[in-house]
Amino acid sequence: MMENKSAENKLYDIAIIGSGPAGLSAAINAHARGKRIILISNTENYLNKAEQVNNYLGFFNISGKDLMRNFKNHIRDMNIDLIKSKVTNIMNFNNAFMINTVSGIINTKSVILATGVIQDKKYNGEDIFLGKGVSYCATCDGMLYRGKRVAVAGLSDDAFEEANFLDSIGIDVTFICDQFPSKEAAEHKNLILNDHIKYIFGKVSEISGNERVASVNIMLLESMKKNNPLLKIEIDGIFILREAISPASLIPGLEMSGPYIKVNKAMETNIPGLYAAGDCTGKPLQVAKAVGEGLIAALESVNFLAGGS
Amino acid sequence: MMENKSAENKLYDIAIIGSGPAGLSAAINAHARGKRIILISNTENYLNKAEQVNNYLGFFNISGKDLMRNFKNHIRDMNIDLIKSKVTNIMNFNNAFMINTVSGIINTKSVILATGVIQDKKYNGEDIFLGKGVSYCATCDGMLYRGKRVAVAGLSDDAFEEANFLDSIGIDVTFICDQFPSKEAAEHKNLILNDHIKYIFGKVSEISGNERVASVNIMLLESMKKNNPLLKIEIDGIFILREAISPASLIPGLEMSGPYIKVNKAMETNIPGLYAAGDCTGKPLQVAKAVGEGLIAALESVNFLAGGS
Repeated sequence: MMENKSAENKLYDIAIIGSGPAGLSAAINAHARGKRIILISNTENYLNKAEQVNNYLGFFNISGKDLMRNFKNHIRDMNIDLIKSKVTNIMNFNNAFMINTVSGIINTKSVILATGVIQDKKYNGEDIFLGKGVSYCATCDGMLYRGKRVAVAGLSDDAFEEANFLDSIGIDVTFICDQFPSKEAAEHKNLILNDHIKYIFGKVSEISGNERVASVNIMLLESMKKNNPLLKIEIDGIFILREAISPASLIPGLEMSGPYIKVNKAMETNIPGLYAAGDCTGKPLQVAKAVGEGLIAALESVNFLAGGS
Repeated sequence: MMENKSAENKLYDIAIIGSGPAGLSAAINAHARGKRIILISNTENYLNKAEQVNNYLGFFNISGKDLMRNFKNHIRDMNIDLIKSKVTNIMNFNNAFMINTVSGIINTKSVILATGVIQDKKYNGEDIFLGKGVSYCATCDGMLYRGKRVAVAGLSDDAFEEANFLDSIGIDVTFICDQFPSKEAAEHKNLILNDHIKYIFGKVSEISGNERVASVNIMLLESMKKNNPLLKIEIDGIFILREAISPASLIPGLEMSGPYIKVNKAMETNIPGLYAAGDCTGKPLQVAKAVGEGLIAALESVNFLAGGS
């Protein structure tokens, strides 16, 4: 599970989360300034799917895939590593940040969020019970639920491994998923659940409880046209495993502006040392804007590290 | 002299002034949105002189010249013309802009300033007497000085042609210049003054007068170590001909922030319909920032034209 043990016990200058145009631009600029950086990403960039990009200066009539290849080549030529991992939360204390990932902890003096647009809507009750039964990381919080009942909302490939981990440490697991992987994908990516795990084909509609999570309502997909499509199951916790976690859930107290991270022209968020760049800061959701903001976030972060802001 | 007569009598949607990374990025984006644009520039971009650029995502280890060539190819492939001309001033009225250039007038609904950093410092008295004997355009204002005495501060190649024009319409011209072109450059670019024109090898130190310009003090370069290096000559006007004119002098009422144009995150200046992008809006003076801002200025300008802001 731990892909990058070497990342632990180090104090990085700048951790960059996301490997789209903003994250990569931040990486080359921070690296060029001699900073000790770590670049982390879990998701494929949407740019790969763009049929044609004409408005990033210097490349005319290029596919998103080829443009992304140029970008990846750039960081490879600068000897910057990309760590494939999912960030589950970020804590800020003592003028430093501790980033929890599914593959370990990263310590850093500053952070650049370049997480793009997180598409998934939150569930009803998700925010209310965050830290009170709602978790985004089985590896981090699983041990708290030994001998108890949890649901896993499986919205990403790693949900299967996480569910199996919970099962293996003696937790009663119900896996909720509205789209099961194809046999091919399941075999190729090892998306196979342990036999013990109960499986429900549906969507979470609400997480309920009093002090802590007590139950989850599930909209059953196969019976949506029947009279009673809702199933309520009692649980002690729910692990919501999306491809990526929305910034506001990643770090407590991060100020948002609607669905986007609020930044000023220096790409500073409301938390000192924490910067954001690219689509996660708002429209226009375009490569050139993301690349420009990645540059600025990197330079401002360098400035911050020097005590300049 | 008039290189682009066709530019007259048209009403453009967006005029982009400057052909560095910001101007070119604005051009490709405005063009891609189907807007009628005009791209104007007089100066060579500093980027051409950069030995190596490593921090514009997608191009590693590229010379400034080659990067600029890629940029120019991009606009050529999109069939965008670059008009070589110098803008002398911009007027804003009736929800439109009239741009005076040395080769004619351009009418446009909106403007994007991407003029880069104007290096030259202003002369003492220049701002005070602007429009009262100080002019940046011989073609525009020359006729006002027929039969009178003017100085030409020759800080750009076109100063020679402008001085000759003033001489040809019956003006007593003194040409002030601290660096005469090499014989080669003079012949190649036709930087040769008419015989009538007096020539002073020095630097303007102050422009003086009461209601209007009355005299100019010149620091004589050849005698700088002597006791009396200052020469004062009486004039009715002075034409200050730099490679480019600072934004604040181009358009009255433009709000600045120090030496830079004040913009918000949408690249709006304080004048509706007038946007700015790139180095002219401030640090970091970097390609990626300029390209990102050019994109934003173009999209916001398109939005403005649609009545959206």
